[in-house]
Amino acid sequence: MSHYAKAGVNLKLARGVKASLPFLLRQASRPEVIGDIGAFGGLFRAQFSSYRDPVLVASMDGVGTKLRVAVGMRRHDTVGRDLVNHCCNDIAVMGADPLFFLDYIGTGKLEKKVFDGLLTGLARGCAEAGIALLGGETAQMPGCYAKGDYDLVGTIIGVVDRKRILDGSRVKPGDVVMGFASTGLHTNGYSLARQVLFQKLKLKTSDRPPELGGASIGEILLRVHRNYHPLLSRIRKRGIPVHATAHITGGGFEENIERILPSQCSVRIRRGTWRIPPIFGLIQKGGKVSESEMYRVFNMGIGMVLLAPSRHAAAVIAESVWAGIPAFEVGEVARGKRSVKLI
Amino acid sequence: MSHYAKAGVNLKLARGVKASLPFLLRQASRPEVIGDIGAFGGLFRAQFSSYRDPVLVASMDGVGTKLRVAVGMRRHDTVGRDLVNHCCNDIAVMGADPLFFLDYIGTGKLEKKVFDGLLTGLARGCAEAGIALLGGETAQMPGCYAKGDYDLVGTIIGVVDRKRILDGSRVKPGDVVMGFASTGLHTNGYSLARQVLFQKLKLKTSDRPPELGGASIGEILLRVHRNYHPLLSRIRKRGIPVHATAHITGGGFEENIERILPSQCSVRIRRGTWRIPPIFGLIQKGGKVSESEMYRVFNMGIGMVLLAPSRHAAAVIAESVWAGIPAFEVGEVARGKRSVKLI
Repeated sequence: MSHYAKAGVNLKLARGVKASLPFLLRQASRPEVIGDIGAFGGLFRAQFSSYRDPVLVASMDGVGTKLRVAVGMRRHDTVGRDLVNHCCNDIAVMGADPLFFLDYIGTGKLEKKVFDGLLTGLARGCAEAGIALLGGETAQMPGCYAKGDYDLVGTIIGVVDRKRILDGSRVKPGDVVMGFASTGLHTNGYSLARQVLFQKLKLKTSDRPPELGGASIGEILLRVHRNYHPLLSRIRKRGIPVHATAHITGGGFEENIERILPSQCSVRIRRGTWRIPPIFGLIQKGGKVSESEMYRVFNMGIGMVLLAPSRHAAAVIAESVWAGIPAFEVGEVARGKRSVKLI
Repeated sequence: MSHYAKAGVNLKLARGVKASLPFLLRQASRPEVIGDIGAFGGLFRAQFSSYRDPVLVASMDGVGTKLRVAVGMRRHDTVGRDLVNHCCNDIAVMGADPLFFLDYIGTGKLEKKVFDGLLTGLARGCAEAGIALLGGETAQMPGCYAKGDYDLVGTIIGVVDRKRILDGSRVKPGDVVMGFASTGLHTNGYSLARQVLFQKLKLKTSDRPPELGGASIGEILLRVHRNYHPLLSRIRKRGIPVHATAHITGGGFEENIERILPSQCSVRIRRGTWRIPPIFGLIQKGGKVSESEMYRVFNMGIGMVLLAPSRHAAAVIAESVWAGIPAFEVGEVARGKRSVKLI
């Protein structure tokens, strides 16, 4: 059942929905959208006249076990933003601009409060990203999901001019690797984080360990995945020749950077060149997790990397200052067997 | 983690995968696809030069509790086809041609045999539908899903010329309502069907009640959702003026036809004008389900309806014979308050 009806949200589900939601849903639109969401399918005009050879870029993803933190904290209005931003990043690294988004909520029995929170987050995420929330589906599947649990899945569609697709082929030895700060775990490594923090250290989401500088565990864990598309778009428009970008998700620097490297290029990431948020130290120490495991599971404070000729490092940093996202020179590309080394 | 790697499927998951899968995945592609699936996002060239004002049509959906029948029968290679076909229908009713598809598998712990089956079904469904399987994601979320259970979600993107969008505005009193046969339950009503057949009647999937003419309950319940897009496309190309089409899913004739009717049109559906598959009689009798409830929950043997000027009824039937899909005149449009009546 589509959960967006002509009036904004499904009538059955709309009772008790926050007054702000219809407003947010109207914000989560674009001029290309035809009609109201709620039909069998969403409609979006393919007006790509400013593209010579437009290529659609599509990605589908979930939020993962970060959802369980949200469920535990009964705070459901952030994970939608996580999902939208994660998806934006996944196609932004290929050079694409996001256009529209669809969501799916699977659950045993949907509570109105949960639905309200999820849609608020999704709509706000889309509005912030400048994309349209084109449709969504709710599936109530009693018995398939554990009680109170749900899954949240999203699909994003964007567009890129074919000659501007970033596939890593432009990467050259000597390129600098710029890293952009994450807000925390983003949406990866939550199974390990939850195991260490909640099971091993017996912490509660309301606990405020001194290492976290006043914030609670729950606040830190629910921090919203950062959307780097606006920054990457600005860098591109400034004419900075970006050779490749990689979204640092599960698999960390090694897996995510390796797949954008040409066969003759290796990357060295220099630890200590950026600030690692204290939550990672807490997990590493508390769980006696090895350094290599930490860097394989978590982003360790860098959510996105960008490879470019080293003479443009300062210009990249200048743009990131504009975007309010700390940026660091975290490594470089060398000649050698395709690999990513942490040194 | 994207489950399609450059070689066809994710390396980790590929061990033990059926030899036929890479072949099927290659079939599930189109000339517009750039590169191999497995990158951060899938790439599809937006070559819409044969469209004057191309509009993308998007829909996202799940399979629902039909999955539980598949899990119970340990038969996982049909639900992917169900999902692809369901999605094709959802956008075909708006006049669109499907282009590409993405999938998401959420589960606690993914077994290779299950993964293999799901991907086989998805790839085969896309190949049969003539669309590209552009990407997919597997999320292993221990604790979120009941043991052995999974959710399967899909997104489809298609395209339609703006002036050809079927939004129901062309529907007129006097139009005939043509119904196209379903293969059975398709993907709706499984919660009620399972409750009646397995809990109330204590049947097993291997049981062969005489009403079903030799087939087992399980075979009937897993019958693949029919894709009506090829038939609708052919009808359109023959120049038959289609006024509207509706995919008969959850909500039955009433909800699904009502949302495509203009305000001055009512529809009468004449029961007895088509053959109702025996599974529905078994459920109705076994569960003492009221007639109106049956028609609200199930498609009752009609998976798609098409509204057109009545003089074209014979031509529609001729095309459906070509497609091998039984077609019936099941009702007509009259002047009156927007409503759908079963008579």
